[in-house]
Amino acid sequence: MTYIDLNSDVGESFGNWAMGDDAAIFTSVSSANVACGFHAGDPSGIAQTCRDAVSAGVIIGAHVGYRDLAGFGRRFLDCSATELADDVLYQLGALQALARAAGSNIKYVKPHGALYNTIVHHEVHAQAVIDAIKAFGEDLPVLLLPGSVALAKAEHAGLRPVAEAFADRNYNPDGTLVSRREANAVLHDSAQVTENMIRLASDGTLKAIDGSVIQMPAESICVHGDTAGSVAMAAAVRAGLESAGVQIKSFV
Amino acid sequence: MTYIDLNSDVGESFGNWAMGDDAAIFTSVSSANVACGFHAGDPSGIAQTCRDAVSAGVIIGAHVGYRDLAGFGRRFLDCSATELADDVLYQLGALQALARAAGSNIKYVKPHGALYNTIVHHEVHAQAVIDAIKAFGEDLPVLLLPGSVALAKAEHAGLRPVAEAFADRNYNPDGTLVSRREANAVLHDSAQVTENMIRLASDGTLKAIDGSVIQMPAESICVHGDTAGSVAMAAAVRAGLESAGVQIKSFV
Amino acid sequence: MTYIDLNSDVGESFGNWAMGDDAAIFTSVSSANVACGFHAGDPSGIAQTCRDAVSAGVIIGAHVGYRDLAGFGRRFLDCSATELADDVLYQLGALQALARAAGSNIKYVKPHGALYNTIVHHEVHAQAVIDAIKAFGEDLPVLLLPGSVALAKAEHAGLRPVAEAFADRNYNPDGTLVSRREANAVLHDSAQVTENMIRLASDGTLKAIDGSVIQMPAESICVHGDTAGSVAMAAAVRAGLESAGVQIKSFV
Amino acid sequence: MTYIDLNSDVGESFGNWAMGDDAAIFTSVSSANVACGFHAGDPSGIAQTCRDAVSAGVIIGAHVGYRDLAGFGRRFLDCSATELADDVLYQLGALQALARAAGSNIKYVKPHGALYNTIVHHEVHAQAVIDAIKAFGEDLPVLLLPGSVALAKAEHAGLRPVAEAFADRNYNPDGTLVSRREANAVLHDSAQVTENMIRLASDGTLKAIDGSVIQMPAESICVHGDTAGSVAMAAAVRAGLESAGVQIKSFV
Repeated sequence: MTYIDLNSDVGESFGNWAMGDDAAIFTSVSSANVACGFHAGDPSGIAQTCRDAVSAGVIIGAHVGYRDLAGFGRRFLDCSATELADDVLYQLGALQALARAAGSNIKYVKPHGALYNTIVHHEVHAQAVIDAIKAFGEDLPVLLLPGSVALAKAEHAGLRPVAEAFADRNYNPDGTLVSRREANAVLHDSAQVTENMIRLASDGTLKAIDGSVIQMPAESICVHGDTAGSVAMAAAVRAGLESAGVQIKSFV
Repeated sequence: MTYIDLNSDVGESFGNWAMGDDAAIFTSVSSANVACGFHAGDPSGIAQTCRDAVSAGVIIGAHVGYRDLAGFGRRFLDCSATELADDVLYQLGALQALARAAGSNIKYVKPHGALYNTIVHHEVHAQAVIDAIKAFGEDLPVLLLPGSVALAKAEHAGLRPVAEAFADRNYNPDGTLVSRREANAVLHDSAQVTENMIRLASDGTLKAIDGSVIQMPAESICVHGDTAGSVAMAAAVRAGLESAGVQIKSFV
Repeated sequence: MTYIDLNSDVGESFGNWAMGDDAAIFTSVSSANVACGFHAGDPSGIAQTCRDAVSAGVIIGAHVGYRDLAGFGRRFLDCSATELADDVLYQLGALQALARAAGSNIKYVKPHGALYNTIVHHEVHAQAVIDAIKAFGEDLPVLLLPGSVALAKAEHAGLRPVAEAFADRNYNPDGTLVSRREANAVLHDSAQVTENMIRLASDGTLKAIDGSVIQMPAESICVHGDTAGSVAMAAAVRAGLESAGVQIKSFV
Repeated sequence: MTYIDLNSDVGESFGNWAMGDDAAIFTSVSSANVACGFHAGDPSGIAQTCRDAVSAGVIIGAHVGYRDLAGFGRRFLDCSATELADDVLYQLGALQALARAAGSNIKYVKPHGALYNTIVHHEVHAQAVIDAIKAFGEDLPVLLLPGSVALAKAEHAGLRPVAEAFADRNYNPDGTLVSRREANAVLHDSAQVTENMIRLASDGTLKAIDGSVIQMPAESICVHGDTAGSVAMAAAVRAGLESAGVQIKSFV
C-alpha cells in the first residue's frame, strides 16, 4: 500500500500571542514540528501542543531554530558552529522534557525557517545541526530539503534524512523551489495542490511550473496550519490522498 | 566515617559576560548547581561547565529559576503555577541534554535565587516546582532550605529533600537565616566559617548569632565561587573539613 | 459642551505575532496607549502604530510595563525602584523617538497590566513610575485608576493625574472594580455599556453592580481593540456618546 | 593646536553581569560609545554610565547594535531594512531619555560590532542606519570606518561622518585592518601604539604592518576599557598624545 507523511509547524504561540490552530491541524497531519522556544513557543504553550499531539496520535518532532524571537527565526544569524550546535541541543532537551511529560518523545528533528534555508548550502551550520542531533544521542531522523547540504551531512553522519516536499509551492524543472520573489511561487488552488500531492505520493513525481514532470523522492509533505485557509487546504490534501488510496502515516 | 556535600552555583556566564571561575570551584565542591538559561547561562557556556564538572568528578544539578535574565532570577515573578512548572520542566530538559552530551546526567535540582526564597513559604510556586520535578520523571532529589514549604512538599510527593546550610551566613537562634538587611548577616572570616562547618558536618549543629548552639540537620553546604575570595573560602572550608576527618562527597 | 476621552491599548503585536487591529480601533478612540517593547511591541510594529495614530488624529501615550514579554506584562515583577524607574524611562525614550519620526510626540503615560494594578497600592513602584516620568522632563499627564496610590503621588509630584473608567467592567458600590474572579466582573452588553458611559460622561456617575449610583470622576474611558467584538463595542460606545451630545476628545 | 578625539565602548554591563570599568576609562577618553540595550546594557546600568560620563565631562554617543544579547551584537543578523532602521531609532530614543535625565544628550552615533563591520560594505543595512539617524531628527555625526559604504551614505544624507582609527590594530598597506585571523592583527605594546597614534594625530598617517606609511585621515581614535590592560593602554595613549602636544577633545 502507498503511504506518505504529512507534517506541519505547531506550538508557535508565545505567551499572550496566539498562532495557528494546533488542534485543528492535528486532524490532518501525522507529524508535528513543535517549536522549541528559540524562534517561537513558550513552555506552557509547547506543553499543551505536545498533549494535543499525543491525544491526536500525531508524532512529535523538534522544530529547532536560531535564537530570534523578534524575527521568528526567519533571519539568518551568523553564530558560530559551537553556539549553533549547543543552541540546537538545548532546544532538543527542552522539548524532550515537555514531550515526555505529555507521554511521548521527540521522534525527529526539522530545522526551522532561516536555519532550514541556510543549511541547504551553509556547510558549517549544516554540520552544527547534525552534530547537535548526534550529541542528543537518539540518532533522530531529520526532515530536510532534497538535495541540501544538510541532507548529505545527515546521511554521512549515519542519521536518517527524510526528504520533504511543500504542498503549496511551485517547483522549477530542476527540482528547486520557485523563489517567493517570483509570481506563482505559491499555489492557492486546493484541487491542484491535492492532485500534485497524489502524484507525489503515488509515483514520486511532481508537475513543475513549466508543466514538465520531475522526480521528487519525498517521504513527507509539508502543509500549513497558521490560517483557516491553510488548515482547510491541509484537510483537503489529506482527504484527496486517502481517496486515492494513499495512507497518511509518519515516517518513523 | 563522617561526610557532607559541598555545592556551588556555576554556569552563570552569559554570552560575552563571564561570571565565576567554574573550573576553580570544581576543585572544592562535590555538587554543581548549573544554571539552565532562564536566570543565567547560555547553551555553550552551560555545555562547557558540564564538561568541566564531568572532568572534575563533580555531580551536576539543575539550578532552575524564574525567566528573568535582566534580574538574574533574583526578583520574584508572579507567574501562574502552570507557567512556573512548565518553565522548570523546560529548563530541566535543556540542561539534561547538555549534561548527557558531556557524559553525565542531572542528578538533583536546586531552585535559584528568588525562586529558592519564594518557595520557602509560597505554597503554589513550591508545588509547581515539585510538580515539574515529578513530571521530569527521574524523581530527582531537591536541595532546599530546612523547614521550607517546598521541602515538606518534596517529601510529600515522594521526592528526596536535601536540606542545606550556607557556609558564609549567620543564623538566628530559631534556625532561620539572619536577614541580609542586618549587620553580621554574612560571615567573612574563613576560620570561623570552617569551624562552623566542621561542627555542622560532625554533629549537625551550628553556632547561631547569639552564640547558642542550634540543630541544623543539613546534608549539604552551599559555598560560592563568583569571586576570588569566595573560591578561596570554599577551598579553606574543604581543607578544614578534610583535616577534621570529614569526607566531601555528593548526597546522591 | 460635554466631552470625554476614549483610550485603548495598541501597538501590542510582536514580530510575527499580531495582536489587535490598531487601524480599526483608531476610528473610535482619541488616545492610543502604545506598547513600548517591554511587555509587547517591536520597534517596526510600534512605528507603524504611531504613523497610523498620527494619520487618524489620535493622541499617542506611552503604555509602559514590566520587562516581561513572556508574560505580556501581566505578572508582578519584584524589581527595585531604580530598576523600575530606569526601565520606564528607557521605554519612554524609545517610544518618543518612534512617535517623533511619525510626526508627533508622546503626550501622556499609562502604566500597563501588572504595573498598573501594582501601583494602585505599591508605594515604591508607584513612586518609581512617577520619578521616571519626571525624569523624562516633559511632565506628561498619567492615566491611572481613581483612588490609586500612584494617582496621589502623581499629583504630589506636580504631574497631572487623569482618572479613567473601564467601559466593560462592573464596579462595586465603593467605586472599586469587581474582581475578575467574580461573576459579572465584565460587561458584555453594548447597550448597557454605552448607557453607563453616557451617564459617566454626562454627570460623573456610574451604576454599580448593586444598582446604586456612585461618583466616578473619570476624564477618560478605556475600551479594548484586541478582538472584533471589542472593536465593535468601542464603536458603539463612541456612537452612543456622540448621539447623546458628548464630544470625544483627548484630555491633553 | 593639534587635537584628536579618543572614544571607547562603555555601558556594556547587563544586570548582574559587569563589563569594563567605565569610571576608569572616562579619565582617558573624550567620547563614550554607550550601549543601548540591544547588544548590551540594561537601563539602570546605562543610566549610571551616562551620569558618570557627564561627571567626567565625556561626550555621550549611542552605540547601536543588532538585537542580540546572547551574541553581544557580534553576529550578523539578516534583518530587513525597516526592522534595522526602527531597531536603531528605538535604541537612539531609549538612550536619549537616559542621557537627558543625566543632564546631557546623545551627541553622535557609533554602530557596534557586527553592525559596524557589516555596514562597511552592506548597502541596505548601511542605508537603514543612516535613515534611522536622519529620522531621529538631530542629524547626529556618525563614527565609522574610513572608506566604508556607511561613511559615503552618511555624507550623502547630509550627516557628518567621523572617520576613526583603532589604536591597537595593525593596518594593511591599503588602509584596511589586518584581519583578526592573522597574526599581528592586534598590537600589545603600549609604546608602539602610542607612537602610532601621535603620528596619526600629528600628520594623519599610520605605519602599516609592512612598515610603509599610509594616509589615515581619522578624527577619532578607538581605545578599549574592558580589561585592566586596555584601560592602562588608553591612559598611556592619552598621556603620550598630550606630551606630544596633542589635545584630547571630542569631535563635536
